[in-house]
Amino acid sequence: MKKRNIAKFLRMLRKEGGEISSFSSSSLISEHPVVSSSSSANMNSLCKKSIVKIQKRLKYKFNDRIWLEQALTRRSFVLESISTQVDEQANQRLEFIGDRVLELAVARILFVKNSGDNEGELNTKLKYCVNNTTLATIATRLRLGKYLIVGKGEEMCGIRENQKVLADTLEAIIGAIYFDSNEDMKRVCKFVARHFKTYLKQILASN
Amino acid sequence: MKKRNIAKFLRMLRKEGGEISSFSSSSLISEHPVVSSSSSANMNSLCKKSIVKIQKRLKYKFNDRIWLEQALTRRSFVLESISTQVDEQANQRLEFIGDRVLELAVARILFVKNSGDNEGELNTKLKYCVNNTTLATIATRLRLGKYLIVGKGEEMCGIRENQKVLADTLEAIIGAIYFDSNEDMKRVCKFVARHFKTYLKQILASN
Repeated sequence: MKKRNIAKFLRMLRKEGGEISSFSSSSLISEHPVVSSSSSANMNSLCKKSIVKIQKRLKYKFNDRIWLEQALTRRSFVLESISTQVDEQANQRLEFIGDRVLELAVARILFVKNSGDNEGELNTKLKYCVNNTTLATIATRLRLGKYLIVGKGEEMCGIRENQKVLADTLEAIIGAIYFDSNEDMKRVCKFVARHFKTYLKQILASN
Repeated sequence: MKKRNIAKFLRMLRKEGGEISSFSSSSLISEHPVVSSSSSANMNSLCKKSIVKIQKRLKYKFNDRIWLEQALTRRSFVLESISTQVDEQANQRLEFIGDRVLELAVARILFVKNSGDNEGELNTKLKYCVNNTTLATIATRLRLGKYLIVGKGEEMCGIRENQKVLADTLEAIIGAIYFDSNEDMKRVCKFVARHFKTYLKQILASN
């Protein structure tokens, strides 16, 4: 039985046994999130050519591309599709994680580079870097809209140019990189430093 | 020259050469934050007995105890002291990092344990766990107030029982553990899962 299947099996067992009775603090840590499928046969909504291209743009190569697909697949597509194995909430759940990962990554960079700043100054600089406008600008530069996997209804509403959706997608991508890199914050910081360079430079110039 | 001194020296050089001209995204990642001193001779404000006790309470042993001292030393003490080598902003800067680390740690635990929750539900549960009231309660249970290093003025104002100060100190401790563990989020999650167990259990029970 593969490692991933064992983890899935154990989670199923734990659920059957009752979440609370089996609760221990260590059980929260030992697990790494399990994705629904990593088989390339299921990557039917993102062609191999697109995967190569977007990874080149992101300058990050996924160990398990299902994370990338989850980050790019909007609920509207899942609800319309009969074949996708991507969870309908996956994209938004990764956005929830990515939001926190991004804040920590930028906070870490500011902490190291602005040794004289107090908490208030660090907070102001963080807000300058992390907001929907900067996120949407970076997502546009990365052409994330082009690679979004969306339902027909959303497609007709011009979702690929929607600034809030683009910002959310970048957060989901950052969440995906966090888990794909085995929760390696230094690897995430490298990604953030590269793509947020323009804003970080402006902040350092203001010191 | 020790590794830490080399890093310090390189940072000094970079500053002299101009922050912007030498800016590259990789330079933001290669550095691990440098603390002012790790010599036990400088641990004059936190006796060895206290260090042993608090580490036992935290169930975390610091590799470099200066992180612990920085987290516990309030600005009021630094401003009154002529011998401490702790930076006057250190405690608040660690609180800035710890705030983000804690949010990510709880978000990660919820992500793994609540696979059916959407983003809104995850956000609600995160806010239930991470707020000043829960933080102050946990900090009180850990008796952090007793170990705070404060100036005489603050001492007379009953700072050791101040709920907001206790909450902030727990965040600073979490920031200190993050850097002390070489930015190992899994190690931080272990700490958070252990000390936030009561609240996490309540959330899992509500599933």
